[in-house]
Amino acid sequence: MIDNKAFYKLSYGLYVISSISEGKKNGQIANTVFQITSDPARIAVSINKQNLTHEYIQKSKLIGVSALSTETPLEFVGKFGFKSGRTTDKFSGVSFKAGASGVPIVLDNAASWIELKVEKEIDIDTHTIFVGKVLNSELIKDIDPMTYAYYQDVKRGKSPQTSPTHAANKNNPVKDAPKYQCSVCGFIYDPAVGDPDSGVEPGTLFEDLPKSWECPVCGVGKAKFKPLD
Amino acid sequence: MIDNKAFYKLSYGLYVISSISEGKKNGQIANTVFQITSDPARIAVSINKQNLTHEYIQKSKLIGVSALSTETPLEFVGKFGFKSGRTTDKFSGVSFKAGASGVPIVLDNAASWIELKVEKEIDIDTHTIFVGKVLNSELIKDIDPMTYAYYQDVKRGKSPQTSPTHAANKNNPVKDAPKYQCSVCGFIYDPAVGDPDSGVEPGTLFEDLPKSWECPVCGVGKAKFKPLD
Repeated sequence: MIDNKAFYKLSYGLYVISSISEGKKNGQIANTVFQITSDPARIAVSINKQNLTHEYIQKSKLIGVSALSTETPLEFVGKFGFKSGRTTDKFSGVSFKAGASGVPIVLDNAASWIELKVEKEIDIDTHTIFVGKVLNSELIKDIDPMTYAYYQDVKRGKSPQTSPTHAANKNNPVKDAPKYQCSVCGFIYDPAVGDPDSGVEPGTLFEDLPKSWECPVCGVGKAKFKPLD
Repeated sequence: MIDNKAFYKLSYGLYVISSISEGKKNGQIANTVFQITSDPARIAVSINKQNLTHEYIQKSKLIGVSALSTETPLEFVGKFGFKSGRTTDKFSGVSFKAGASGVPIVLDNAASWIELKVEKEIDIDTHTIFVGKVLNSELIKDIDPMTYAYYQDVKRGKSPQTSPTHAANKNNPVKDAPKYQCSVCGFIYDPAVGDPDSGVEPGTLFEDLPKSWECPVCGVGKAKFKPLD
């Protein structure tokens, strides 16, 4: 028997993964970035094949990784979410630089960045694991990295008393409405919180989300969500 | 320029990875476990080729993953560290069960477990990335998983006031002696703390560690350590 809840005990960080192809740049949020070897340093990054960044990485073999810090505003995570890379320039209004390879590297809210040249691509069905050699890297600010759990608990207002969404929960008529959890990444949609990054107001029931709504973290559709017990 | 400190902003969990071969079982600590696909669910695990568990996984194609919780005692992490799999039975005194495939699954201190059948092995120099299909999984206890950062900060007594090593630091004559950091995984050797899991008493200078001493987290030798600024 497979219990998806077991997977939610795996720990991840939160990153902006960026790439470039024919002068066009894109970036997205991802949580699967891991160091594999140390000498030379190699990093693995797993990306969904449907994403524009995946296409750019396959063409240029270049990846920029920005490890987001706990100070990252929710809006920033939303900006680099999965919705608009093909139609808008996600880098508009964002501090970034070109690495030595030419790949764009996001600096805003990053504790550190790493520039990778892809050496190996492993096809795993819906995703590709890119293994890249580190070209350059830098610690920007010695601040705690944002973990996926921190993002869920603190940034999304799931639990702490101090979060701005806590008060909203109290006075919101949908506070008892069911929450829905993404079966892919574990993200919880709370109707009392909504999905402000996508223009979904607090108080919007899951059932009332538009059909085009996607998980703000991993980008899958509504069908992948299940009601929480 | 490659700044290794940039890598320390990548986030990881802490896991016991177990396997079996010809009736012999082994387990080790690892931090690189991540979900790649959702349907079917597949998990990637990166293991150093020098480890006995690596050999067993290659032979049986079976992996047990136990996601350790924040309640895990340091001694337990040390027990499944890198030192003794070839000469002792690490499972002695540990609660575990055999999965449906026969792979041993550690239950002590685990928030959840996952049983994997390896579908793909990717050779990355010193390490192999094993990609396995989930056979079975279970949430044992809905408790926070131990992250690598938590292990470093709280369990190793690097910072919090509440840790038992904090007081020790105050009265220890080696408190001003230089700390050394593992260039591979970021582990910090603090002479005021020592490495009790390996029988190294608090107060032992890095220089006085035996030549055979290895990083308790990733298993590399002393030569991979550099003094902290």
